[in-house]
Amino acid sequence: MELLKVDSLEKALEKLTDKSMGIKPETKKIKIENALGRIIAEDVISGENVPGFRRSTMDGYAVLASDTVGAGESMPVFLKVVGNVEMGEDSAIEIKAGQCAYVPTGAMIPDGATAVVMEEYCEKFSEDQIAVYQSAADGTHVVEADEDVARGEKILQRGRRIKPQDMGLLASVGHTEIEVYKSWTCYIISTGDELIDPDEPPQKGKVRDVNTYGLIGMAASLGFEIKGFEKIKDQEELLEDAVERGKNAADIVIVSGGSSKGKKDATAKILDKLSSSGVFTHGIAVKPGKPTILAVDEPSNSILAGLPGHPVAALIVFRQIIGALWNHKTGAEEELSTMAQIDTNLASSPGRKTFQLVKLTHTEEGNIATPVLGKSGLIYTMTKADGYIVIDRNLEGLKAGEKVKVYYI
Amino acid sequence: MELLKVDSLEKALEKLTDKSMGIKPETKKIKIENALGRIIAEDVISGENVPGFRRSTMDGYAVLASDTVGAGESMPVFLKVVGNVEMGEDSAIEIKAGQCAYVPTGAMIPDGATAVVMEEYCEKFSEDQIAVYQSAADGTHVVEADEDVARGEKILQRGRRIKPQDMGLLASVGHTEIEVYKSWTCYIISTGDELIDPDEPPQKGKVRDVNTYGLIGMAASLGFEIKGFEKIKDQEELLEDAVERGKNAADIVIVSGGSSKGKKDATAKILDKLSSSGVFTHGIAVKPGKPTILAVDEPSNSILAGLPGHPVAALIVFRQIIGALWNHKTGAEEELSTMAQIDTNLASSPGRKTFQLVKLTHTEEGNIATPVLGKSGLIYTMTKADGYIVIDRNLEGLKAGEKVKVYYI
Repeated sequence: MELLKVDSLEKALEKLTDKSMGIKPETKKIKIENALGRIIAEDVISGENVPGFRRSTMDGYAVLASDTVGAGESMPVFLKVVGNVEMGEDSAIEIKAGQCAYVPTGAMIPDGATAVVMEEYCEKFSEDQIAVYQSAADGTHVVEADEDVARGEKILQRGRRIKPQDMGLLASVGHTEIEVYKSWTCYIISTGDELIDPDEPPQKGKVRDVNTYGLIGMAASLGFEIKGFEKIKDQEELLEDAVERGKNAADIVIVSGGSSKGKKDATAKILDKLSSSGVFTHGIAVKPGKPTILAVDEPSNSILAGLPGHPVAALIVFRQIIGALWNHKTGAEEELSTMAQIDTNLASSPGRKTFQLVKLTHTEEGNIATPVLGKSGLIYTMTKADGYIVIDRNLEGLKAGEKVKVYYI
Repeated sequence: MELLKVDSLEKALEKLTDKSMGIKPETKKIKIENALGRIIAEDVISGENVPGFRRSTMDGYAVLASDTVGAGESMPVFLKVVGNVEMGEDSAIEIKAGQCAYVPTGAMIPDGATAVVMEEYCEKFSEDQIAVYQSAADGTHVVEADEDVARGEKILQRGRRIKPQDMGLLASVGHTEIEVYKSWTCYIISTGDELIDPDEPPQKGKVRDVNTYGLIGMAASLGFEIKGFEKIKDQEELLEDAVERGKNAADIVIVSGGSSKGKKDATAKILDKLSSSGVFTHGIAVKPGKPTILAVDEPSNSILAGLPGHPVAALIVFRQIIGALWNHKTGAEEELSTMAQIDTNLASSPGRKTFQLVKLTHTEEGNIATPVLGKSGLIYTMTKADGYIVIDRNLEGLKAGEKVKVYYI
């Protein structure tokens, strides 16, 4: 492993994308009722028109609009009722001038009819005649056969994260199954002589393993599946064994922990040894999150990442690097964000991209973002934030009142 | 069932809350690694300080800050190195005036020391002496024993929807399990003679069952579990049997479909018959979504709701009524929303709350909300929207440039 200089976030992602070119997320077909939140793996083209026939949007009478010209409250038009369309039936009748047929909401409009007059504006006049007290324009209360979806239309795009309404839309065009990307699998390793498990009693000098649980949550929030997790002492042989287990088990192997240089170098050495690419990024120009290490192992189809020990940094870098790579490979939309106005001056670290946690408030003026400040490494500060902003590396900070993009966390 | 007048959304929710008082979501303990997105059922109080001991945030030397007064690049202070604190160890030494000890990032700071000087500003001078080229104030690069979390502090509140960082925080204070609300279970019934299943070939007059799949997605997005779903013809006996099956299977029984008055009355009649409360809301002053029916059956602990056939209305009303009731009963935060500026004049329906789908765009000026217009009943319009706004019943509409709250969908 050669000595590497620190990469920008963009450069690190570009290298990772390039080196992992051979690693392609697999796809599978699933039933639409199980598809919420999954990423669509192919564009969905409708093979049909929806609704497929002209439909009424009201309970009323299907008429020729031209027959109703001049109709009004004091001057009804009289039409002959030639039928009564039942819900769900193919209306066989054809409406000619002077005729009409009853149609309930959602039923098929008979051929010939061009509009629907709501029944409130109609009155039964004789056994087979009604008086119409309102004029209708062509198309009134009519949904055209291809008005919801037209045959051949691309209704959902590859990369779409499936929402409830998409499940309804897929049902409407007869797609009962959908090709989605298989979730990436993750194996999470936390290292550190100072780490104890959450169920151990507290000890002087030791802290509980926070990163494993935060990273499990972050991976799950991106839709990834956790294949395993373990906590190990800072020993190269232990790390080597753990990374081997991770490579066999999962697509993504995360090693988190160690902020000291010696530890990071040990992690880099192991990831270098166990990857086909070797370590190609050793340090990223972000704050917090500098000690990030990236490598790819093509024989096992796995991505190896050393993340900072700093819990906030580990979670954000996981999303900014591994999440971004997933989005890139699946065509998925960027994570949810919103615009807000920062309410205070904020210094950043020129030359490094700064991630700043913020709390969001809704006001009459729009969204207000208030920085959540806290010493490096404190997980509690992150639970008080609604999101984070990214301050560009060529800025020295932000001025109160500036508009910022907030990524929800 | 008496004849009922249309309720406001608030009134309908108030009645539903009142009538369902006896129905309380159950709770259960789950492991924190499986807790993402669940609603916490009790406040979480930390029983410990975190980190529990004074910790260094840098690789460096633990010193008495008072010893470094006046130290600078050209005027070092000389200190005696009396120890080397290992990561994860209880540092037994005590630092006295003129002394120091090496501490790696994250390690325990020995008693007596009040600050850490980064190793970059120190130089080995002799076997057991260093030169310090920087002065440090008390507390520099030191995290206090209770700085992340203090014993007795309420760190997470009942009703919190668990985020990745919360999972880390819970681990840090030794909570390996967390009491959460059990998901509500849902049974979804779509009614209509015009409905065919998504896997059936299209037929004139028939449309595929959209609502079942949209509602499955919406229920899942609220964390509910789907116990079953079925599509039935418009016959009272069939509906009665289906609702009975739903009551036995689930907490929430949804009947969707039918926009015509006759159908709605049939649904209301069955829900009235099969509920202990009887139907107490029959129609809500919202647009779209008026034909909403509510009842509660205490013997089976179930909530019965008739939702509009209109797919967009069905999804939004489900969230605004059933989702809101869930939030109320669990103390959960309101669904995610953001502020935006509406970019066009928009008419609403005075006397009714109007739900308007919008698309969101991020600009230098903030979030812009553009109404997504489309004929009533078209599901495709909803897939083009990022959220919806709620226009109050006493407004006649909105003016371009007004600030609105957008609920993400």
